Amino acid sequence: MTRDEIIQQIRAGKMTGTTSGLAPEYVQANLVVVPAAYAADVRGLCQRNPVPCPLVEELPTGAVEPRCAPGSDLRTDLPAYRLWIDGTLSERRHDVRALWRDDLVAFLIGCSFTFEHALVDAGYRLRHQELGRTVPMFRTNVPLAPSGRLHGRMVVSMRSFPAADVEGVRTVTRAYAEGHGEPVHWGDPAQLGIADINHPDEGDPIPLEAGEVPVFWGCGVTPQLVTIESKLPFVITHEPGSMFITALRHEALATTGS
Amino acid sequence: MTRDEIIQQIRAGKMTGTTSGLAPEYVQANLVVVPAAYAADVRGLCQRNPVPCPLVEELPTGAVEPRCAPGSDLRTDLPAYRLWIDGTLSERRHDVRALWRDDLVAFLIGCSFTFEHALVDAGYRLRHQELGRTVPMFRTNVPLAPSGRLHGRMVVSMRSFPAADVEGVRTVTRAYAEGHGEPVHWGDPAQLGIADINHPDEGDPIPLEAGEVPVFWGCGVTPQLVTIESKLPFVITHEPGSMFITALRHEALATTGS
Repeated sequence: MTRDEIIQQIRAGKMTGTTSGLAPEYVQANLVVVPAAYAADVRGLCQRNPVPCPLVEELPTGAVEPRCAPGSDLRTDLPAYRLWIDGTLSERRHDVRALWRDDLVAFLIGCSFTFEHALVDAGYRLRHQELGRTVPMFRTNVPLAPSGRLHGRMVVSMRSFPAADVEGVRTVTRAYAEGHGEPVHWGDPAQLGIADINHPDEGDPIPLEAGEVPVFWGCGVTPQLVTIESKLPFVITHEPGSMFITALRHEALATTGS
Repeated sequence: MTRDEIIQQIRAGKMTGTTSGLAPEYVQANLVVVPAAYAADVRGLCQRNPVPCPLVEELPTGAVEPRCAPGSDLRTDLPAYRLWIDGTLSERRHDVRALWRDDLVAFLIGCSFTFEHALVDAGYRLRHQELGRTVPMFRTNVPLAPSGRLHGRMVVSMRSFPAADVEGVRTVTRAYAEGHGEPVHWGDPAQLGIADINHPDEGDPIPLEAGEVPVFWGCGVTPQLVTIESKLPFVITHEPGSMFITALRHEALATTGS
């Protein structure tokens, strides 16, 4: 299916699950929507913490059609949404048109699906894809730089590789600055405050094979968790795994290492 | 003295000490110079860690006249320099023309003198200035996002304020994104891995007065420490406290909180 066909299916409510592996040549993005009174704080959080929170696009107040996907509507074109009231999950929907207000500001934040595509192209194995599981995610002890009302700690995703592949994996992902770029850590999970690599906070556990080391990237779940934990009165996010498929091709975001 | 007069004095070797308090309306900057082979790693370090490493300007390879100070020469216009070979301090100089090579790349990185000026204008006391001391700096346990060969931990500077002033201080400094912006932490030094607030790693101790809390900002010493600890074969930095006075006025860098 082409991207346009996928978006039509999602908009019609016929595809409501994960977007993992769909339209792999296009950049996928996390969604965070907040009232305009909090937009400067979210913008600052992204500017100050670009590794876990790479800002792909901030829409004008009230707008629903992003520049990165002309013709799309962020209220209907994601498979599933969550509404958070005062930091508590209020409801899940497949269409948030009825919740929309003129004072809402939507942020699209980069996703590691971007560099996964590049890693596969470069011949590296992605164990969670082989196993048909969701990538494991962990809350760390690494503090974010606060931004106004918002503060919290970094969330990371983990993929494991043979030790000899780590430098190659770093090199491939370095170019994808808007998809978290190169890893933030590799080797010892305890350095990030991760107690048990087999018990992720989100996603599925992926047991390490002999000779593999865990490699950790900043994760786009970070800004969602921050807005929720900061108990903003009204936040809309996508359902994790059910991302927005932009019309940007990966090559448009990859930067050369110079 | 005007900025031009100060630069002339520095260039003539007649001013060789700290630039603290000089030409307070102008942005001052940290200097890091590395061989071109390492420039992409330094650039990436700044992009990925903009709070401690705000990039004011990267010069073209071999260039010594920055866009932020037309007519200046970075080899002569700082009061004092350090040369680091393989991570070890090799020598101190007041002029590095004889060390210059065509393959060197100079980076100017923001400095907290930028927001100190704004805090004073807003009526806040700066205890280290009152006492005539250098601001205290601490190495933290907060890991930076690595960039190629470079990795390390954040350095912070500390200023103390009455607890009731912290939100006001955050608001004033938030606008100065290229001078580290708002604080990274306030309150408990142990949260940053700082064992003893009265024993800074650089600068002078400033005892807290009753009712004061310590407030911590990212520090431009961070990228210098990283290049040194990563044992790059050849690095030129300024002498801490002896900064480069750019021709940029603070207002040019301050952004509104929107």
